[in-house]
Amino acid sequence: MTQTDTAPHVFDAAIALAGTDGDGLHGSTRPEYANMVGPFGGVTAATLVHAIQQHPDRLGDPLALTVNYMAPVSDGAFGIAARPVRTNRSNQHWSLELAQNGALATIGTAVSGLRRDTWSDTELVMPPAPAPEDVAPHGLPEFIAWANNYDMRVIEGAVPSDGAGEHPTSTTSLWVRDSPPRPLDYPALTALCDVFYPRVFLRRGRYLPAGTVSFTVYFHADNDGLAAVGDEFVLATARAQSFSRGYFDQTAQLWSRAGALLATSHQLVYYKD
Amino acid sequence: MTQTDTAPHVFDAAIALAGTDGDGLHGSTRPEYANMVGPFGGVTAATLVHAIQQHPDRLGDPLALTVNYMAPVSDGAFGIAARPVRTNRSNQHWSLELAQNGALATIGTAVSGLRRDTWSDTELVMPPAPAPEDVAPHGLPEFIAWANNYDMRVIEGAVPSDGAGEHPTSTTSLWVRDSPPRPLDYPALTALCDVFYPRVFLRRGRYLPAGTVSFTVYFHADNDGLAAVGDEFVLATARAQSFSRGYFDQTAQLWSRAGALLATSHQLVYYKD
Repeated sequence: MTQTDTAPHVFDAAIALAGTDGDGLHGSTRPEYANMVGPFGGVTAATLVHAIQQHPDRLGDPLALTVNYMAPVSDGAFGIAARPVRTNRSNQHWSLELAQNGALATIGTAVSGLRRDTWSDTELVMPPAPAPEDVAPHGLPEFIAWANNYDMRVIEGAVPSDGAGEHPTSTTSLWVRDSPPRPLDYPALTALCDVFYPRVFLRRGRYLPAGTVSFTVYFHADNDGLAAVGDEFVLATARAQSFSRGYFDQTAQLWSRAGALLATSHQLVYYKD
Repeated sequence: MTQTDTAPHVFDAAIALAGTDGDGLHGSTRPEYANMVGPFGGVTAATLVHAIQQHPDRLGDPLALTVNYMAPVSDGAFGIAARPVRTNRSNQHWSLELAQNGALATIGTAVSGLRRDTWSDTELVMPPAPAPEDVAPHGLPEFIAWANNYDMRVIEGAVPSDGAGEHPTSTTSLWVRDSPPRPLDYPALTALCDVFYPRVFLRRGRYLPAGTVSFTVYFHADNDGLAAVGDEFVLATARAQSFSRGYFDQTAQLWSRAGALLATSHQLVYYKD
């Protein structure tokens, strides 16, 4: 894929919303971000974050996001309502809805807010990883359209190939960035938190029906932290904690090359074995 | 505290809701579950789960819950609306609201659903811990009213006492159950996921202004799994991953004595140092 200086990045086209009233925004799915059924959930979540960002009454930057995928989003137009439900002195609570043909397909909540200079510390330790330049580009199969918009360099836990057996752990770690490269912002970081294929594939060594039902992101990077990443690779790592009778949870961390924890993310995923 | 055979458990009194229409339920805060400001957030979340459970159109059991605390809940009456926004074949999506005096104080979403017999596995390993009978009862100071309704036996990471210095990690592990004992159910499990004092206290060695802004629970136990726990202790462990300019995340796990992962939980917490 090539990009001219004037054409918008395909990700910006995918999260674009028309309208100035946060309660009545309009967007459209893009074939470049198609998943097996409907669009990549990460880009749907990113579009909701984008709706918050362009709201005229927005206070601060995203802190927490939860998106619940109720029904597949169909290819084509959708409407978004992002409503500030309560605005406090330093933070703001949001209600989020995505609708198609008069029916809600996705709902969510978010918290945005102002950060302050105070004691801070990253308690987690960044997992060791070879430099992205030393890892061969390798991600998801080409037929998963959205994945072609990411430069993925899998360090551990690649998607199982034909005949792969069961795997003892569900951890996947990869370097990843938009392709073509694009400066990191909150929508892009949101989508990156959902860049992992379903953990049950890895454990079982094969593809299964699976889909995210609830997706949460906690944003730790402020705008300076995002700017420091620029369009560089981030280290993304995810694992499941429990597979319980049709639903598993996934917990993920996204790190900058410099060792800053940009976001932590969690999701509950339906699976059928 | 004593309990007769006929009096309801104080937790049941705290989560009790009048009304049969999920859209117009009424409850009241209880002094027994008071926190520093307003009620214990865990009991607010538990009350929302209880609202789902008693809805006439409910499908299945709780799978995922996210509760956003927008404003302190005042002592006294509140209204709850639990609305099934979309019902699929095997799961159901909920919108949750708690209001006082015409203003929303708490919003949330939830997913309930049917589980199926399928491949399951707990990938996390239960942390080693002495038996609860071998750990002295020790929890939070008595002036934190809600904590008096829990039998807490802290193994690691007790709340800092006067003059405690900084602590290198934020991990707290404890055995905990309702006091007096009460059979575990989804509302009780929800509240137990919020039983940890703010992680920043432990790291900094002192009390600070702090409050949860967003709280998520993924339920891994089905009804048989809850019944297997009965009124026994559960092992609850939590840590922070990042403290970032006024907000930290906490990730928690709740285990049965027999080694079943009952729930995983996450929250984003405001702090001021």
